[in-house]
Amino acid sequence: MASEFDLIERYFTRAAPAGLLGVGDDCALFPVPPGEQVATSTDLLLEGRHFFPDVDPKALGHKALAVNLSDLAAMGARPIGCVLGLALPRLDEPWLAAFAEGFHALAAAHGCPLIGGDTTRSAHDLAISVTVFGSVPPGQALRRDGAQAGDDIWVSGELGAADVAYRLLDGQYSADASLLAATRGALEWPQPQVALGLALRGIAHAAIDLSDGLLQDLGHILAASRAGACLHFADLPMAPALAGLDATQLRRALLGGGDVYQLCFTAPASRRDAVMAAAQAAGARATRVGQVHAQAGLSVLDERGQPLAELPAGFDHFPAT
Amino acid sequence: MASEFDLIERYFTRAAPAGLLGVGDDCALFPVPPGEQVATSTDLLLEGRHFFPDVDPKALGHKALAVNLSDLAAMGARPIGCVLGLALPRLDEPWLAAFAEGFHALAAAHGCPLIGGDTTRSAHDLAISVTVFGSVPPGQALRRDGAQAGDDIWVSGELGAADVAYRLLDGQYSADASLLAATRGALEWPQPQVALGLALRGIAHAAIDLSDGLLQDLGHILAASRAGACLHFADLPMAPALAGLDATQLRRALLGGGDVYQLCFTAPASRRDAVMAAAQAAGARATRVGQVHAQAGLSVLDERGQPLAELPAGFDHFPAT
Repeated sequence: MASEFDLIERYFTRAAPAGLLGVGDDCALFPVPPGEQVATSTDLLLEGRHFFPDVDPKALGHKALAVNLSDLAAMGARPIGCVLGLALPRLDEPWLAAFAEGFHALAAAHGCPLIGGDTTRSAHDLAISVTVFGSVPPGQALRRDGAQAGDDIWVSGELGAADVAYRLLDGQYSADASLLAATRGALEWPQPQVALGLALRGIAHAAIDLSDGLLQDLGHILAASRAGACLHFADLPMAPALAGLDATQLRRALLGGGDVYQLCFTAPASRRDAVMAAAQAAGARATRVGQVHAQAGLSVLDERGQPLAELPAGFDHFPAT
Repeated sequence: MASEFDLIERYFTRAAPAGLLGVGDDCALFPVPPGEQVATSTDLLLEGRHFFPDVDPKALGHKALAVNLSDLAAMGARPIGCVLGLALPRLDEPWLAAFAEGFHALAAAHGCPLIGGDTTRSAHDLAISVTVFGSVPPGQALRRDGAQAGDDIWVSGELGAADVAYRLLDGQYSADASLLAATRGALEWPQPQVALGLALRGIAHAAIDLSDGLLQDLGHILAASRAGACLHFADLPMAPALAGLDATQLRRALLGGGDVYQLCFTAPASRRDAVMAAAQAAGARATRVGQVHAQAGLSVLDERGQPLAELPAGFDHFPAT
């Protein structure tokens, strides 16, 4: 006999940290460190498009916040808090409890408490909107438009596993239980690189997260920075589980595979030691994979320095038809 | 042949005002007035639940932002900016252009520019998430928990028209073109009371907007403030178009009707002149409709001071079954 208000209260109200007014008023209130700006990002996730209907709700709660924290990471912003909108096709309390558990656990790990929200009923699909807030001193945000000719291009972590897990679950690749087991965590439990983003303030010239895949996301940096780049395919940090893929699958996973939530960033060659130290301090891996140059265009070179002829397309929610 | 990115750029990118980093990076950035807190609210609106599928897209763009600005108004917060998530079942450019026009016009009127967003494709229904940001000095926010015994209860504007328009469009009331014409604007073009909320800082003890209807929303104030209240039914500021309704319809519209986006607030009886002056300065109407008392419970009195026996229920997205 739970009403909407009981429901919100039970799963999504937490004692707000000092200085924050949490769920339960027209607005949530939060303070901002003196002199800093607010960084904010919003994502709208839909069943059947951004996640499978049968996904573990705890993983879904984690990921709904993780993709937004990854945007704060890519700006070098420190998390403050978040708000959540949930449209539910039915009232399923065990599902809600698990979703809330996954969400709150990641929120606690990153000091990003849930401070407001909106729960409603949907006619068909589950929809989840998350908006996160963080703070960054003026001029220190890692933007997309700061890449300079001569910069190294770096990526954090490993690439490709999420793409393979997605295609296995979607039936595009033939069933392979051990490959799925080795890649599924990357798809369902991405770890936003918040500490790395903070450590790269003052070092990186530009940064983005790899939500849409390396070629597409690096392309955003290059377009905003009016620059070009080359990548060295053999240097890309491949997830070890991908060793058995054929060449087409591997290119698709490493260059086109989205849903990664690692960072791609550029930094001057003179700051290579500083990048490595920042990565180490953040507990992250950073790999140098290419260079920015002044001339427009993005090429990917094979081991002999020859451009790859066929590159995978990026993901587009509204592909041209 | 428009891609998702072209689409976002065409309709939702505006030159960001000075100091704000707008659509086109991992996060939007905005400054906060020194010493002030950020107020934020989020709403997730769904086709078929929060609006009719054939609603004028320009009105929908207006309303999607209006309901969130109304939450800032109810906190006494000054708008800073907003982010928008859109899940679209199809790519309909005239629809998008009209939606964007309605959204941007209200944003401009309230100094609340769109600074970020997320556009995606939905399998079935249109979904709209809006998150707004505003600022308020610490301690000056109009919260729900500040009502005190002896306070007057006030409402702004007029009540009931949105409820009647909704029931006419939904077929619950028999068709009446002139009644629909007289009430539809209240449902589709609500005007958030931002100026009134700002003017009530330091005067009102508690405030809320009437998104869920007077009885339910005033109930939230009373629960948070651990107080009770009585309302005088004859004092409620009825929209003139409702003069021909029967008694049941009228009670439903004035007491239970949601989607109003006027403010309900409490203030000490000693500040009646200050309330009237604040309303006048904001170009708003304010009507005194009852009193807060210490004892729990909410009663509505008729013209003879007798409690109304039957009160309409509030709206609940997940009614107990």
